[in-house]
Amino acid sequence: MAEHRLPTPRGAAGVLDVLAETVAALGPASAVGVGMPGLVDVTGVLRFAPNLPGVVDLDVRGGLRARFPGVAVRVDNDATCAGWAEDRVGAARGSSHALLVTLGTGIGGGLIVDGRLARGAHGFAGEIGHMVVDPNGPSCPCGQRGCWERFASGSGLGSLAREAAAATPGGRMAELAGGDPEAVRGEHATAAAAEGDAVAQGVMAGFGRWVALGLANLANVFDPEVFVLGGGLVKAGEILLAPVREAFAGLVLAGAHRPPIAIVAAALGERAGAIGAALLAAEEEEASNAASNAASRAGSRADGSPEPP
Amino acid sequence: MAEHRLPTPRGAAGVLDVLAETVAALGPASAVGVGMPGLVDVTGVLRFAPNLPGVVDLDVRGGLRARFPGVAVRVDNDATCAGWAEDRVGAARGSSHALLVTLGTGIGGGLIVDGRLARGAHGFAGEIGHMVVDPNGPSCPCGQRGCWERFASGSGLGSLAREAAAATPGGRMAELAGGDPEAVRGEHATAAAAEGDAVAQGVMAGFGRWVALGLANLANVFDPEVFVLGGGLVKAGEILLAPVREAFAGLVLAGAHRPPIAIVAAALGERAGAIGAALLAAEEEEASNAASNAASRAGSRADGSPEPP
Repeated sequence: MAEHRLPTPRGAAGVLDVLAETVAALGPASAVGVGMPGLVDVTGVLRFAPNLPGVVDLDVRGGLRARFPGVAVRVDNDATCAGWAEDRVGAARGSSHALLVTLGTGIGGGLIVDGRLARGAHGFAGEIGHMVVDPNGPSCPCGQRGCWERFASGSGLGSLAREAAAATPGGRMAELAGGDPEAVRGEHATAAAAEGDAVAQGVMAGFGRWVALGLANLANVFDPEVFVLGGGLVKAGEILLAPVREAFAGLVLAGAHRPPIAIVAAALGERAGAIGAALLAAEEEEASNAASNAASRAGSRADGSPEPP
Repeated sequence: MAEHRLPTPRGAAGVLDVLAETVAALGPASAVGVGMPGLVDVTGVLRFAPNLPGVVDLDVRGGLRARFPGVAVRVDNDATCAGWAEDRVGAARGSSHALLVTLGTGIGGGLIVDGRLARGAHGFAGEIGHMVVDPNGPSCPCGQRGCWERFASGSGLGSLAREAAAATPGGRMAELAGGDPEAVRGEHATAAAAEGDAVAQGVMAGFGRWVALGLANLANVFDPEVFVLGGGLVKAGEILLAPVREAFAGLVLAGAHRPPIAIVAAALGERAGAIGAALLAAEEEEASNAASNAASRAGSRADGSPEPP
């Protein structure tokens, strides 16, 4: 219904200020939902955010409740929010076993298990990008080596594309990047592959295999009925999805003996996180209203008055 | 209460015969639970069992129901059954977010998510041993390379131990194996490490890191409160658990910013699968009784008779 954008702030106080300014700009609300890029615990504290340096143990929910008394506040991981949105009103609508995988700068995950959002014991479930798939792989800002997101994110695609461009002087990808193989990015690979360039199609096949390897790991562990791929990379559509599906079929355990698992593009685009946060905030408000109604009924009975029907 | 053991049969018909003979030998039962080593779908069909050659798409539940009319039958993966047992009456008793990991010849998994057994969309969840952790690793009978169970199972420990024994002539592990470094198995590594042998302790540290790498992947994805390690290897106790815990702390994402995740030994031993299958069979019987009671109530009302209280 309305949108308000502000640049990503620096430091913990800046984060709360920007959130509060956004809430105020969007007008009076009875419930506020927030998706944060990092580990958010079940009480709404952002414990750790690799891409917000200096922001640790920030009580986002508490801070917003203090600034907006009486407003229901729900804070969760942004990919978790997006996964819930895609499951409720998006590409996995109504599915009881779905995984949202956001392929962007990194990889985020939102898990639906038995029809419910799986947040884990502390709220940190879904950090699928940091599944190690090669202990000798490139180092990751998280401190490990060979995390899946080193290979299957936008930066992974860029690396594969630059490597292929450097090995094929005068190729189409370098041409699209202004003639400089070092300037090749993922979007040049997807564009050249869409034009039919064989080198770029080889890059997409290799990248698709890395995406599929992580999806197969997750399928072996979770057995979902659908994977929803979101994030910036998915704008490439079938140029990305077709090689992922092809590689996945050969990687999932006992592929010939199980029903196929769908791999589809997300439906809600970059607003999925905001939509999911809003849906979760509405649930939070409902639960909070139900609790206060129950409390007031209990209060009435203590006064000796009859329980309402 | 009673136990009956038969050798593993060959072929699909043999599997059903052996199960039926076991049920008959244990006397009359109102419910039968079966844990099978492979992919069991939600209708009780064993779709694929890597270690039972020639057994595919075997309707275990249907076959037993035909032989024992009126008996409730529940069939599930054996590690899934064991996970449920450890969560209900074992080492993870009452936990809402637990993972059982059986470390034996291979690796099996049983997942408890939000207090419920997570079976996945088709019943195949928990195949955690086939999570690929090194695409250039050793080949696995499943068809992939570098599955976690190539490194972190009994055979993985044996390989590490033989490698170390071959590199240290006259060492304690080879001595325990009758003087032949090629005859060294996992149990010689755990025994020598328990005696204080430094080479064997190095093997256990390296092996513990492989176990912990997979546990960290699963923790990043699921965020459980406890890992329960079962299977033959766990008989080594702290000789195994201590290096796993140490490596895990450094591998899980944002370890310094999250509550610790417990890693404990299973409590129910090799009977965990049978106990879990029995618990699930009892649930199946209860559900089946509730359904037939509901049907008979509906029948009574259709006859115009009053609904029972």
